Amino acid sequence: MLSKNQLKFVNSLKQKKVRDEHGLFIAEGTKIVKELLKSIIKVKQVFATSDFFREIKVYKTIERIEIKANELERLSALTNPNEVLAVCEIPYYELNENELKDKLTLVLDEIKDPGNLGTIIRIADWFGIETIICSNQTADAFNPKVVQATMGSISRIKLHYFDLVEFFQKHKELPVYGALLEGENIFNKQLSPTGLIVIGNESKGISPDLIPFITHKINIPSFSHFKSGGGEVESLNAAVATAIICSEFRRRLAV
Amino acid sequence: MLSKNQLKFVNSLKQKKVRDEHGLFIAEGTKIVKELLKSIIKVKQVFATSDFFREIKVYKTIERIEIKANELERLSALTNPNEVLAVCEIPYYELNENELKDKLTLVLDEIKDPGNLGTIIRIADWFGIETIICSNQTADAFNPKVVQATMGSISRIKLHYFDLVEFFQKHKELPVYGALLEGENIFNKQLSPTGLIVIGNESKGISPDLIPFITHKINIPSFSHFKSGGGEVESLNAAVATAIICSEFRRRLAV
Repeated sequence: MLSKNQLKFVNSLKQKKVRDEHGLFIAEGTKIVKELLKSIIKVKQVFATSDFFREIKVYKTIERIEIKANELERLSALTNPNEVLAVCEIPYYELNENELKDKLTLVLDEIKDPGNLGTIIRIADWFGIETIICSNQTADAFNPKVVQATMGSISRIKLHYFDLVEFFQKHKELPVYGALLEGENIFNKQLSPTGLIVIGNESKGISPDLIPFITHKINIPSFSHFKSGGGEVESLNAAVATAIICSEFRRRLAV
Repeated sequence: MLSKNQLKFVNSLKQKKVRDEHGLFIAEGTKIVKELLKSIIKVKQVFATSDFFREIKVYKTIERIEIKANELERLSALTNPNEVLAVCEIPYYELNENELKDKLTLVLDEIKDPGNLGTIIRIADWFGIETIICSNQTADAFNPKVVQATMGSISRIKLHYFDLVEFFQKHKELPVYGALLEGENIFNKQLSPTGLIVIGNESKGISPDLIPFITHKINIPSFSHFKSGGGEVESLNAAVATAIICSEFRRRLAV
């Protein structure tokens, strides 16, 4: 049974202010909640149908609340609610300076769309990138839509929110890659196995005040001229560009 | 001024049945409508604010309906309606058998999510792929959410809906690439500059009845083991996988 207070509290976690105040976020869907239960993320409460609890083991340290499908609909942030919703603690990570030196790290400059942010977190996970630095203007990674789009990858990526100008000023020794129109064709350019990759905003690209910090300007070439009619495609979606760039960095290590 | 009948008709075009019956679809947003106006797509009606008509030239052959921002909200399929909505004719294309032989073509096997389908159409446009064959179970490309996600690329890609088993039976001479778990690492595999690339459903992948037609099994390797904690990422989003595959086919031609 779902109490009025529970309903009110879970619904309030759809707001960033409330999530920050309590250090909690919500995750929905069988696949994602299963992954969270076996991850380092601390799950506090599981609201689920009896079907879910029959199938999935939930430790006794976690509060289990059995609810009906129609009650779940009232809790859910999704159009098609699934059989489970979990309330989890937002993880906090220390920034590891050695990892920044030794690994490939993504830097997101004002990614606004929750779906794009979630997809980028999932891409980072696939390509073995463990840290993402977000500008303070980037969407909140613990927004339910972002959590949903990560498909569980949110539990495996260390996220940080910083003022990016200050961040770059502190890390001037690192190679910084950024996709810019005037950049070199990424397919022909030498790429290092470590460093920072900056992904710009969906419509504005990389902010002018960050451009001076980019040490390696890259560009994903369009092949739209291969079509009979020619073409003038303006841009790739931010998550798609991230995927192509990460794939190209990793391919070099694999061949 | 927006009449009741106009409001009713435009809203009815959000349903596939009505779109098919009239051969019409709706497109929203300044960027997309501007691209449609200069494309081969026939625009029938433009509902827009006076700001739009002041800025953008709309030929007299097109019906222009000046409306207020709050009237646009009632027409719109979007959460944040823009300053313009256009009613356009759905284009019909003949399948060009020579193009299938000489070019790279995407085949979509049950892509269900409108956002994914729109993003895939935009990716095809960027990578110079001009034809996309969709299974009859794929989302409708003229759904407003798909049109929106293509960012105008819908006007430059020839779309066909077929029964894919019949389609492959008719085109047994073409190389068919498909991403499957047991496939060879795409980064090391020889790829032809022409042929069909099959993209499977978001959760089920490529349908079992299509697998016999795949002549070249490929796989995008995960690099999740590069992370300290290791990893077990299950999959990439369908649009992201499409981007990485198309990028890899085109890169070979560019280097």
